[in-house]
Amino acid sequence: MDATEKMLAIEEIKRLKASYLRFVDTKDWQSFEALFAPDASFDLSDDAPGGVVVGAAMIAEMARGPLQQAVTVHHGHCPEIEITSPTSASGIWAMEDRLRWPDETGYPLKSLHGCGHYLETYERSNGRWFIKTVRLKRLWVDTVPR
Amino acid sequence: MDATEKMLAIEEIKRLKASYLRFVDTKDWQSFEALFAPDASFDLSDDAPGGVVVGAAMIAEMARGPLQQAVTVHHGHCPEIEITSPTSASGIWAMEDRLRWPDETGYPLKSLHGCGHYLETYERSNGRWFIKTVRLKRLWVDTVPR
Amino acid sequence: MDATEKMLAIEEIKRLKASYLRFVDTKDWQSFEALFAPDASFDLSDDAPGGVVVGAAMIAEMARGPLQQAVTVHHGHCPEIEITSPTSASGIWAMEDRLRWPDETGYPLKSLHGCGHYLETYERSNGRWFIKTVRLKRLWVDTVPR
Repeated sequence: MDATEKMLAIEEIKRLKASYLRFVDTKDWQSFEALFAPDASFDLSDDAPGGVVVGAAMIAEMARGPLQQAVTVHHGHCPEIEITSPTSASGIWAMEDRLRWPDETGYPLKSLHGCGHYLETYERSNGRWFIKTVRLKRLWVDTVPR
Repeated sequence: MDATEKMLAIEEIKRLKASYLRFVDTKDWQSFEALFAPDASFDLSDDAPGGVVVGAAMIAEMARGPLQQAVTVHHGHCPEIEITSPTSASGIWAMEDRLRWPDETGYPLKSLHGCGHYLETYERSNGRWFIKTVRLKRLWVDTVPR
Repeated sequence: MDATEKMLAIEEIKRLKASYLRFVDTKDWQSFEALFAPDASFDLSDDAPGGVVVGAAMIAEMARGPLQQAVTVHHGHCPEIEITSPTSASGIWAMEDRLRWPDETGYPLKSLHGCGHYLETYERSNGRWFIKTVRLKRLWVDTVPR
């Protein structure tokens, strides 16, 4: 890859993650699922012990479950994207999320507010980039029980 | 446009919005107004029913009114910029704003804190990009009345 | 520099600052220090009157002192990077920081939360970019005393 191809790949991966965050907050789960490689994995052991979810469909379901009924805001900051080959890349993103479950949901939490980093890898196939692995590593999480 | 020209246009539009946010928070309304196309429109119906403002000067006045006397922080995140022709582009930005009106202003709100997305279009003329349309779409807004 | 070289330099400087923020929050002070030019300066007079620190090692020590024992989150937004020559650049970043000192530290503050801008310059030497000068300019800071 030449310099221009690398810059295009970096920009495409930034948009991939931007779409991920926006699709969560607008509850567009079908588009969300389509961002992941079929065998993608999502490691949220920091939030839920033992919590590694495998497969694009399972990841979308895992997110939809608690979040569909919540008002959520997910922000990503300061991406550090490394193109490691024409079809593979890694990325680190600072993150902040704010989740609010309305009273009528009866969800055990009223709200969650956290910060940390997403540690990710990406894979290119069929002419576009997909999320391959995500690990959420928290700096802190504040929760308000119902 | 070749790939390099597209990348330059994307970076220029990111800086256009970065300037927009900074000029609001530093109250530089003349520079703020100069970022908009003369016939630009700003749709904030989510915040104020019926609120579509047309014209760069009107948009600057609409912002200056309530914000000049407030301490404000506007942040933009995760831009998804699409160059749709050599002279037109669209963009989606995640956003967060925090506004505080000091007691001496007597403003009906003490503070406002919100998150959402800016849905925007841009236009290139005279060798640079301008903001053509903005729509602010909220995920939530918290306000504290005085 | 041609357009591609400028774009690469801008991306490298964005990553330089992303690393800076991440190294603070993960307390990697050795890597943090290595991001600065040897004669770098850090002006935080807005937070501490007269507070200009000179030298990469002194800057790392100045940050490590109060922050090592705190849980911290530093976010940077909307970079406006200007490449001013093949070996010099400037940048403006919107910023937000959240600092929490656990009770056992006995630190005079329980927490600090602020927003503002980093006004920076950068210098290229030995094939990479370094932070040359930083000035933190606050919009507001909230502190909670212990």
